[in-house]
Amino acid sequence: MRKSDVIQLIFHRPPPTDPKHEKGLAFAPTNIALVKYWGKRDAELNLPMTSSLSIALPDKGAMTTVMLQDQAQETVIVNDREIPSDSEFVKRITQFLDLFRPEKKWHLNINIKMNIPIAAGLASSACGFASLISALNDLFGWQLAAHQLSILARLGSGSAARSFWTGFVEWHAGVQSDGMDSVAEPLSVEWPGLCVGLLTMSDKEKPISSREGMQRTVNSSILYTAWPKKVTQDLAILKQALHVKNFPLLGGTAESNALTMHATMLASWPPVCYFLPETIAAMQQIWSLRRQGLALYFTEDAGPNLKLLFLEEDIGAVKEHFPSVEVVNVFEKE
Amino acid sequence: MRKSDVIQLIFHRPPPTDPKHEKGLAFAPTNIALVKYWGKRDAELNLPMTSSLSIALPDKGAMTTVMLQDQAQETVIVNDREIPSDSEFVKRITQFLDLFRPEKKWHLNINIKMNIPIAAGLASSACGFASLISALNDLFGWQLAAHQLSILARLGSGSAARSFWTGFVEWHAGVQSDGMDSVAEPLSVEWPGLCVGLLTMSDKEKPISSREGMQRTVNSSILYTAWPKKVTQDLAILKQALHVKNFPLLGGTAESNALTMHATMLASWPPVCYFLPETIAAMQQIWSLRRQGLALYFTEDAGPNLKLLFLEEDIGAVKEHFPSVEVVNVFEKE
Repeated sequence: MRKSDVIQLIFHRPPPTDPKHEKGLAFAPTNIALVKYWGKRDAELNLPMTSSLSIALPDKGAMTTVMLQDQAQETVIVNDREIPSDSEFVKRITQFLDLFRPEKKWHLNINIKMNIPIAAGLASSACGFASLISALNDLFGWQLAAHQLSILARLGSGSAARSFWTGFVEWHAGVQSDGMDSVAEPLSVEWPGLCVGLLTMSDKEKPISSREGMQRTVNSSILYTAWPKKVTQDLAILKQALHVKNFPLLGGTAESNALTMHATMLASWPPVCYFLPETIAAMQQIWSLRRQGLALYFTEDAGPNLKLLFLEEDIGAVKEHFPSVEVVNVFEKE
Repeated sequence: MRKSDVIQLIFHRPPPTDPKHEKGLAFAPTNIALVKYWGKRDAELNLPMTSSLSIALPDKGAMTTVMLQDQAQETVIVNDREIPSDSEFVKRITQFLDLFRPEKKWHLNINIKMNIPIAAGLASSACGFASLISALNDLFGWQLAAHQLSILARLGSGSAARSFWTGFVEWHAGVQSDGMDSVAEPLSVEWPGLCVGLLTMSDKEKPISSREGMQRTVNSSILYTAWPKKVTQDLAILKQALHVKNFPLLGGTAESNALTMHATMLASWPPVCYFLPETIAAMQQIWSLRRQGLALYFTEDAGPNLKLLFLEEDIGAVKEHFPSVEVVNVFEKE
């Protein structure tokens, strides 16, 4: 099964690419997985080994503007800086766009504004690809539904499948080889007062991409065999925690899931380690504060930065101990 | 099966405890596991889930002197400092000695000199218990063989089973419930030029004992299920590396085994993490040097300190990058 087959299944014809507007514009929030996606069962379609569950940061993410341009290639601008056309990022975008232009007639000017660090484990490629496909949907007037955009965005970056909604989102692993059931959907639950704190230890690009780290883990880590079971358990517990609003259960499950993911990486060869010394220092501090009674947990993606999990009532305490933290009150109404 | 049953199996009568000398004296080297012992199948007898393989540091360890004393309890002196009788360490020693005095008639003055940091992941309890049982053997004239001492020392501290020989030592997990086949033996292989570098990040006592960390891992870490398989694989590879003197194979296997052990801990709940920020900084530096071509590997026990593995020809390079390293040229003849 190839990506082009999925395009056919969504559009039932070559994707219409006559512009409906001068510009296509869309925002996609970044998402933080509480139960992680780590490992693919199909690298071509980015089909995951397991389901995953995330929370969106409503105001953090990527705003993407696309316009047709009369040039022989894409222009990609991220945060006002043009990205070299031979970079990995532009190549990935170009390959993704190729899916929608089987005969390669048009090229785009793509302007992405992100208010999160790029490739530092803050799901920049997730919100990047989600906003890009939504912007294309706008430009070409495809009028696709969110679950269809979720499937298409996944072809660019797996976790992008989750970046089409705010709040809690579950990405179902699915079982089909065409991935048409590997789609995300929002959960009908809110948690006013739930906060995510971005603790940025490094905004440098990570030395091992998620893609490479995942592949190495699946191929070489003996501990990975236990990962699908861990996810199954954690998804059930986390949904229970959401249902009864048990915050320590949510926090503990998310933290344990993240640590277990990083554990599977450490057992890879060569070792995959996204920890920096600062990461460990922050973890040790969080564990110490928790022993003192503060309901503070963390999660960590494929990068050195931590995302703190806590409740609104503890914002003051968290800021006191982590002055640089950027707090997102996830369900706060403007 | 109880510890006292093992005493019966070794001595076939109450252990003779009339002193043959005024003092009993013995040295036991510390040992660094290249394939780790992590997890017990029997907590009473310290029977391990898996076999393990270590290398002894010939000049690093514990020298223990024991003398009968006319007092109602033990006196335990470590590095010229008397240890409070209500401390965990003295309690463990007292309970261990109780095995050899079913009627509790005598007490000892125990003087231990260690030239390694205590309870910092340098197997201080291993060489401590190994030297203690050997000193008792000397004091009471038991004339026990090394493999019998190995079984007895294990009752005090699991990895003490390995501290009766220099060079490479394998501790066989065994299958019997009485543990009489859970005994260590030296491997008939030497590796002139093999070096261990002690890189001490902290000589503070570790916050979670090996005993507690092990138990929590076995009870709560889903990844632990894959650990026995990892050990089986690594033992086979490591023996092959010893046989053909393939140093990168030895180093890589030892490092991967250690990281996998720490990975199983990270997936415990509450998390068991012996990493300090300095540990991660040193690991990252080692990986960076290896990418530059230096054949440098590490192993790490239940503590924050790393033990570097390298060959004699690279002593200069290792000292240049890690000025504080203490190098032990394991098979060097005096």
